[in-house]
Amino acid sequence: MTGDLSVFGDPRSVAVVGASPDPAKWGYWLARGALQGAGRRPVHLVNARGAVVEGTPSVPSLRDLPGAPDLVVLCTPAASVPSLVDEALDLGARGLLAITAGIDLAHGEPGLERRLADRVRAAGARLVGPNCLGVYDAATDLELAWGTFTAGHLAIVSQSGQLGLELAGLAAHAGLGVSRFVSIGNQVDVTAVEVLDDLVAHEATRAVVLYLEGFADGRALLGAMTRLRAAGKPVVVLTVGASDASRAAARSHTGALTAATEVVAAACRAAGSVLVDTPAQAVELAHLLLGSPLPPGRRVAVVSDSGGQGALAADTLAREGLVVPRLGAATAEALARALPPTAAVGNPVDLAGAGEQDLDSYARVVETLLDSGEVDAVVLTGYFGCYGADTPQLVHRELEVVKTLADAVRVHRRPVVVHSMSPDSEAVRTLRASAVPTLHTVDAAARSLALAARLAAGSGGPVPHAAPGAGTGRALPYLAARARVAASGVAYPGAEPVRTADDVRAAAGRLAAPYVLKAGWIEHRSDVGGVVAGLADAEAAVAALRDLTARLGEGGYVLEEMDTRPGVVELIVGARRDPAFGPVVLVGLGGVQAEVYRDVQVALAPVTAEQARELLGRLRGAALLTGWRGAPAVDLDAAAEVAAAVSRLVAGQGDVAEAEVNPLRVGPAGAVAVDALVAVGEEGPR
Amino acid sequence: MTGDLSVFGDPRSVAVVGASPDPAKWGYWLARGALQGAGRRPVHLVNARGAVVEGTPSVPSLRDLPGAPDLVVLCTPAASVPSLVDEALDLGARGLLAITAGIDLAHGEPGLERRLADRVRAAGARLVGPNCLGVYDAATDLELAWGTFTAGHLAIVSQSGQLGLELAGLAAHAGLGVSRFVSIGNQVDVTAVEVLDDLVAHEATRAVVLYLEGFADGRALLGAMTRLRAAGKPVVVLTVGASDASRAAARSHTGALTAATEVVAAACRAAGSVLVDTPAQAVELAHLLLGSPLPPGRRVAVVSDSGGQGALAADTLAREGLVVPRLGAATAEALARALPPTAAVGNPVDLAGAGEQDLDSYARVVETLLDSGEVDAVVLTGYFGCYGADTPQLVHRELEVVKTLADAVRVHRRPVVVHSMSPDSEAVRTLRASAVPTLHTVDAAARSLALAARLAAGSGGPVPHAAPGAGTGRALPYLAARARVAASGVAYPGAEPVRTADDVRAAAGRLAAPYVLKAGWIEHRSDVGGVVAGLADAEAAVAALRDLTARLGEGGYVLEEMDTRPGVVELIVGARRDPAFGPVVLVGLGGVQAEVYRDVQVALAPVTAEQARELLGRLRGAALLTGWRGAPAVDLDAAAEVAAAVSRLVAGQGDVAEAEVNPLRVGPAGAVAVDALVAVGEEGPR
Repeated sequence: MTGDLSVFGDPRSVAVVGASPDPAKWGYWLARGALQGAGRRPVHLVNARGAVVEGTPSVPSLRDLPGAPDLVVLCTPAASVPSLVDEALDLGARGLLAITAGIDLAHGEPGLERRLADRVRAAGARLVGPNCLGVYDAATDLELAWGTFTAGHLAIVSQSGQLGLELAGLAAHAGLGVSRFVSIGNQVDVTAVEVLDDLVAHEATRAVVLYLEGFADGRALLGAMTRLRAAGKPVVVLTVGASDASRAAARSHTGALTAATEVVAAACRAAGSVLVDTPAQAVELAHLLLGSPLPPGRRVAVVSDSGGQGALAADTLAREGLVVPRLGAATAEALARALPPTAAVGNPVDLAGAGEQDLDSYARVVETLLDSGEVDAVVLTGYFGCYGADTPQLVHRELEVVKTLADAVRVHRRPVVVHSMSPDSEAVRTLRASAVPTLHTVDAAARSLALAARLAAGSGGPVPHAAPGAGTGRALPYLAARARVAASGVAYPGAEPVRTADDVRAAAGRLAAPYVLKAGWIEHRSDVGGVVAGLADAEAAVAALRDLTARLGEGGYVLEEMDTRPGVVELIVGARRDPAFGPVVLVGLGGVQAEVYRDVQVALAPVTAEQARELLGRLRGAALLTGWRGAPAVDLDAAAEVAAAVSRLVAGQGDVAEAEVNPLRVGPAGAVAVDALVAVGEEGPR
Repeated sequence: MTGDLSVFGDPRSVAVVGASPDPAKWGYWLARGALQGAGRRPVHLVNARGAVVEGTPSVPSLRDLPGAPDLVVLCTPAASVPSLVDEALDLGARGLLAITAGIDLAHGEPGLERRLADRVRAAGARLVGPNCLGVYDAATDLELAWGTFTAGHLAIVSQSGQLGLELAGLAAHAGLGVSRFVSIGNQVDVTAVEVLDDLVAHEATRAVVLYLEGFADGRALLGAMTRLRAAGKPVVVLTVGASDASRAAARSHTGALTAATEVVAAACRAAGSVLVDTPAQAVELAHLLLGSPLPPGRRVAVVSDSGGQGALAADTLAREGLVVPRLGAATAEALARALPPTAAVGNPVDLAGAGEQDLDSYARVVETLLDSGEVDAVVLTGYFGCYGADTPQLVHRELEVVKTLADAVRVHRRPVVVHSMSPDSEAVRTLRASAVPTLHTVDAAARSLALAARLAAGSGGPVPHAAPGAGTGRALPYLAARARVAASGVAYPGAEPVRTADDVRAAAGRLAAPYVLKAGWIEHRSDVGGVVAGLADAEAAVAALRDLTARLGEGGYVLEEMDTRPGVVELIVGARRDPAFGPVVLVGLGGVQAEVYRDVQVALAPVTAEQARELLGRLRGAALLTGWRGAPAVDLDAAAEVAAAVSRLVAGQGDVAEAEVNPLRVGPAGAVAVDALVAVGEEGPR
């Protein structure tokens, strides 16, 4: 799956070409960083003018080195890079780390970077970059990057070097450290997928944050994520483009509604990783990924020594989609036994001074809550973490409580997340080191837990297999599209093609009234008034044909039975091929709900009926399907079968690039499709 | 409006009763804090055993003091408080600060605290607390509270002492300081409203954060907020209860949909203040309130030296409801002139190395953007703020750019918000001190700007006047309710009371078909099947009457014309009296949109038609009203008139406690109400 990238993790020797004594230059930082590993490997500096950097002399060129450099770092002007690459390869370098940007531009030669990469690979070597910020590995004293790093267990892989540095900085600021940092730059040779795969066996790494701007080979990326998840190293994904108004040129609503980031989110869910919005969110979640168990569900108990802070935490957790449930009587009694009578033993639990009187209260309450089996996580919010800092004689007792909390987490395999008013006391640092995530705002504590619950709920199972194929195609006429969808097991009302008034009368005799007349050959027929519904009898249909023909001309009209069952909810079900991640399926509440409130769910296709049902259950308006305001529940199984069928239609071996049923009318007994859009690849069946 | 609270801001002398040498005791922190002001005023410590605290001896009782103490701090056991209050008043104290909690409980005497407050007031003195954490005033060296404070310009008024401390701690951590801190505790004498009013003239205070759990006298609070806003000191409000499932016992949908926090948010908007969700959000917003101008609108330009960080900032701003608009050609040209050709001059502006080559690029670009008039704020995201920290020779040049940015903000009166990768460099501190809000995450930068835009959009004008009155009442039968709403100028279809088949036939002759038959005396008639619509003629109506009578018995049935106009959108319009803030009005998209997606807007009542139209425009589904998918726009003016009329009905001098029209059917020409719920106060007209 991956080539040997060991030269970028623990090279036998390093040469920095472009080393500089000027702290304003990149060459300074790379030389300085490289020299920090001089105890582990020979480090050579190359500078045309023989500069001395931090006391270390340099040689004028690579050829002047005493032996072959294993890894060559290039931070020289773009014009010099191609010849330096050749020189390094000649000398037998296994790896090149190209910091320099704009090589194609400097040479006025588009594609030069890619051709350099070809030369590198042909020589049996590998290249990271160009246009990157460098690499760092805590375990091997390898620091070949701008900036400074704190050693730890979080790997950062970033297409934007500076965003990678921001992640590393935020992590350090939050008391977390980095195991490996790879700024992948233009990825002309080594790709994000390879770097991820290389982390599967990287001992110090416990979790990965990945920033990518493009997903060239989405399914390969998902493979790497799945392998990392299987190795117990979840991947947190960051990307941009959420605000991009330019959606995929939309033939169907499915196209307009499956924005790039929604597909990325669905893909991450399938691979057991999770998409977050910002570097801060990535680091907040990372707190929970470095040793703490993940919450098996969304139920949270809140413990505080302040009623105000406890209530505020409960509100914040609820806003993040978590649940702060009422506790059972047995748990409330157990809490009451553990606390003085002034404490409030609901959820939130308000210690109301009990913590001050006896620090062990915290431990007893948290253990009781974890014991109860009624919650998936505990959030501790307030003054805890400050006792020792404000009152030195409490340091030891507070640290004892920390130990008890950490033990309880290990035993119960459920997370305890602490929101402490101290950002960095000894107790806080010890909590973090003991896999008890501790954050400085209740916002961050709630978000980390919510993201972890989302991550835990992702499948992590094998990514659904889908046949490759084109993402676009030509739309079929209505009856042909209907036939394709119907052939996959979706029910349609009776329909017949009609061209003349006589056709209409004959068809009406065979179909049940009322009718709908559709201009079947027009793709966006609703938008041009090409659909007339509620035709009570044959003569009404004849009149409608006359009217449509006058407006739209002659063509392949279709007379169809009209679904008038009561208690129906309209859904949209669609599938299309995403250029990066392949087939995706969408379900949503039809019309306004999907389009105005964006109440849709997206998943990688194909999905099983069971998975489709779960998607329907995740809709915000799911309550509309299960018996809204006394109405009967609709047939969710039937709706799910249709979604599964549509997903298979696009993900299968056929030539379907895009399929949509909008609306799908779902009643208490069965689902009936009353429209169909199918686009098939121009190239014919694969 | 407010009594003289000067004794809590700058007392002539302070006596701390319950002073303690033990750092684990409150009496230690209060004594220690009080002694820090000993250079400004006499500070006396009282301890029964004559303890020495931080080198200062104490006297055994208040009576042993050399003179009358001006402000007496009580942090003694609850049992001792009543007699100490009397003693302090006897000695002539003007102020009492009661830290002690649980006085009623300790004495087994509910209401004792309130009676103590009466005694204090009768003696011409005032009392803050009890059950509070103390007060702090930076300008007068007054520190009578647990914890430590950093001097600055943010006032904190908090019902929860510890949450107040959290706010102060987060502010200090973010480089902001506190001008005054008042933990108001149980408010048995001095109330939040008085403390707020006392801040209007408090010189050091530039903004206020208020945490309240209850809003006993909402309209008085709004008055104080309005006065603070007029003095240029906006109030940021925090409360709890957003996740409370227990809504006001709901007679109408308006009741169920106007949750407590939504009313607080509407009230804040009316008073020119703003409700936030968490202490961190309050501090994020405070960054923008301490000298920076507020954004006059939601358009933001993004500037970064990293394409990734710029794009991520744009996404984050959009997620917070701000707009990152495309810039005009003239602005793009001006930017191009200010930057080297490698820079990208869209929005975001990507300096792409230009900042590194020439730090002045930052200043030129920001000035160009502020000059353009095309944006209401600029967000600078990335490495700026780190240059000097990483490369000492750049310190001065970076600080020069800071000065230019600060000058540009002053001249253009639009905010520049910086997201810097450094949390605390000299440049960052200087930016903050120069009223250029600088935050450490792009999340915080975006949120602060979004909250500031929301604050700026709040009226700050006079709070609408409303007559006082009860919040509950008894529901009127349908025809009476209709008549009340219609009398305020709302159109209804024709309707007549019917009891017998003959009544129905006679009424049908006078009304236009089709008809609706309603069980008008039943309050929730829809839920029991007491409304039958679509009755084509008189005989259908007679049959419906027979059916309803069989199921629901005889009663005041109503035959009504059915509104069948095409192109209609259904709205909900309602008003009720909130127990704290008085009359509020709600508009929403009818049915599913309001109830499932909570697409409603709430404001203090009464509203003008113009204000009601603005509320309608703020609905997420506003696009449904202005010509959705080729449909004609509906008559927004007519809908707004109805909302204004309903708001006046409840806010006026009449006896209406609650009124609702659900649905209000709004078509291209006019709005027709087809239901009415009116509850009148039991006490009759006021």
